[in-house]
Amino acid sequence: MRDAVAVTGPGAVLSDRVKLTDEQRLDWLRLIRTDNIGPRTFRDLINHYGGARAALTALPALARRGGASGPARICSLEDAQAELKAARSLGVELIALGEPEFPPRLQMIDDCPPLLAVRGRSEVLMRPPVAIVGSRNASAAGVKFAERLARDLGAAGFVTVSGLARGIDAAAHRASLSTGTVAVLAGGHERIYPAEHAPLLEQIMAEGAAVSEMPLAWEPRARDFPRRNRLISGLSVGVVIVEAARRSGSLITARLAGKQGREVFAVPGSPLDPRAEGTNGLLKQGATLVTEAADVIAVLEPILGRGFDLPAQEPEPDTPGLLDVEPGDDERARITGLLGPTPVSIDDLVWLSRSSPAIVRTVLLELEIAGRLERHGGSLVSLL
Amino acid sequence: MRDAVAVTGPGAVLSDRVKLTDEQRLDWLRLIRTDNIGPRTFRDLINHYGGARAALTALPALARRGGASGPARICSLEDAQAELKAARSLGVELIALGEPEFPPRLQMIDDCPPLLAVRGRSEVLMRPPVAIVGSRNASAAGVKFAERLARDLGAAGFVTVSGLARGIDAAAHRASLSTGTVAVLAGGHERIYPAEHAPLLEQIMAEGAAVSEMPLAWEPRARDFPRRNRLISGLSVGVVIVEAARRSGSLITARLAGKQGREVFAVPGSPLDPRAEGTNGLLKQGATLVTEAADVIAVLEPILGRGFDLPAQEPEPDTPGLLDVEPGDDERARITGLLGPTPVSIDDLVWLSRSSPAIVRTVLLELEIAGRLERHGGSLVSLL
Repeated sequence: MRDAVAVTGPGAVLSDRVKLTDEQRLDWLRLIRTDNIGPRTFRDLINHYGGARAALTALPALARRGGASGPARICSLEDAQAELKAARSLGVELIALGEPEFPPRLQMIDDCPPLLAVRGRSEVLMRPPVAIVGSRNASAAGVKFAERLARDLGAAGFVTVSGLARGIDAAAHRASLSTGTVAVLAGGHERIYPAEHAPLLEQIMAEGAAVSEMPLAWEPRARDFPRRNRLISGLSVGVVIVEAARRSGSLITARLAGKQGREVFAVPGSPLDPRAEGTNGLLKQGATLVTEAADVIAVLEPILGRGFDLPAQEPEPDTPGLLDVEPGDDERARITGLLGPTPVSIDDLVWLSRSSPAIVRTVLLELEIAGRLERHGGSLVSLL
Repeated sequence: MRDAVAVTGPGAVLSDRVKLTDEQRLDWLRLIRTDNIGPRTFRDLINHYGGARAALTALPALARRGGASGPARICSLEDAQAELKAARSLGVELIALGEPEFPPRLQMIDDCPPLLAVRGRSEVLMRPPVAIVGSRNASAAGVKFAERLARDLGAAGFVTVSGLARGIDAAAHRASLSTGTVAVLAGGHERIYPAEHAPLLEQIMAEGAAVSEMPLAWEPRARDFPRRNRLISGLSVGVVIVEAARRSGSLITARLAGKQGREVFAVPGSPLDPRAEGTNGLLKQGATLVTEAADVIAVLEPILGRGFDLPAQEPEPDTPGLLDVEPGDDERARITGLLGPTPVSIDDLVWLSRSSPAIVRTVLLELEIAGRLERHGGSLVSLL
């Protein structure tokens, strides 16, 4: 059976929004909580099989074809039921991509989580969101500026989005508690990081929300923070970087924002201030300079005025798609043989294997489900 | 007799450079030191009469026609001889526009001084010049950055140009003493401002120069500083503004640089630092952001590589020029009657008076020589 909410790609199903049944929501949860299934693989599977239930049924065969060492670890119905129940008892809603409450801009990103765990006032996600991020090790001036900016953007009707981190993030949240602010968590709703910000998060709940794509009890690891950053930018119309040293995580958020087509703003600082190296660098690369909220509003207002910029939908090519083809064993071995620990592009794999893109992508999906493939940015893949 | 060095407009006579005779230099000096004769009027007169001598002869009649209240105060030959002698005894050369030693970029500006008083190593004016200017009331960080920038640009082969003021200017001069730096004075060479920088100026002389368009003993007044600023930018390929508050004089230099087609650079600062308000504002308007010398060099090197950007020479219109026509008394009265204390554009005067542009401009020149006209920016004029 085809799920009522189709997931055909970025920007899909903005109209025709309907709610999943509880049964479908549990299937979605099982599929995204299954090992080796990320947001992109989720989308590929659900698009091909028409629903999460059918995809779950197909997983063991796919994993076997991908050379999985053992049986695929599929999230059980019981585990999914337990997570859904625990979430609801914490006041956390699992909102599915395509449902009316799902944050509209986030749907546009390529690796949008199929389920977003939202606590607090989910309606705040419908108002114009602007991210304010920056150094944890912020200067007093940086904190003061972040507060001023968040307060003024809040007064102008924006909802601030940030990462609940120490320094700039916390300052931005605090200054916009009364106008609405959204904390995007790297871990689950039961594992607030840093723990000292749990009281701040409770204050945020009054007029704002916290969101996470992770299971409730997920302890955030280092690599979950950059992953989380794509949600901060993906939720927002624009991202303001207040202070950032040369290799700051905020620069990752800025880069992701640029790739997602979000506006990137940066606050200037003295060339002698190491905490301004990152933001000055962004300005050299074309970020909009911000010294006051009006600089942000002047850029974002016209964008909000013209509604969503839906990416131009390319006509569906009249060629076989992913999983519509069945690779032969020779083909599968040839493609797998071209892979190694060094990332290579999918284009190169197609070229070198002389197989069709549909075949190559199907083999890669099988490998991924089998836990043998790692996907990097820019269509690069490597063998684990 | 036509002076060997013709002054036909911005960018003229870059080839065919010859030296003035001493006799001609004295005539030029008399003409530019005569009341109500500024650089533009000087050029108009010398172009029309073919030389300074003939222009001097014509002045009394022009002033009379302009309605001068008394006889025109023309600089005497004796005064000019005395100035030239005093200058030479101080080691100051009066270099004429069009002579080989005249700073090449300065010739391009619309209101280039016909004579530049140069002390020190005039050959330094032939090397690629970059201006570094900023607040007198500079911060320690601003001073430190100006020093670093001047040192690095000096090491890269640039000559720094600045205004000998306290703060950023002095820091830029000091850090490039050994590589060559040019101080542009608002007063004459005998009236160093601020007086405390006289020892710094002597250090500058070793490898650099000081320039002024004013008589040796000219005490700088407030309005001479913005006038001087056009020389700082006019001498330079680009201008770097290091620190500038909202209404800083450095912003005038930046504006003039833009009008003169020079590159404008600005150093960013915290939005909470009032000394960065001006530079951040320039960045918003499109100035190039500078955090290190390489940012300046990257923009200026290609410009230096392609040599001078001579403005496209418009073909001489086949219509009567300034002073080629003789306004009738009625016409002169009608045009003068349209003028008042509020600045009006020359275009409007032509339109309202129904006189030809040549007639209008001739009447304006007469009024100017008579000391009755003030010229503002953007072709605006008013009656004094």
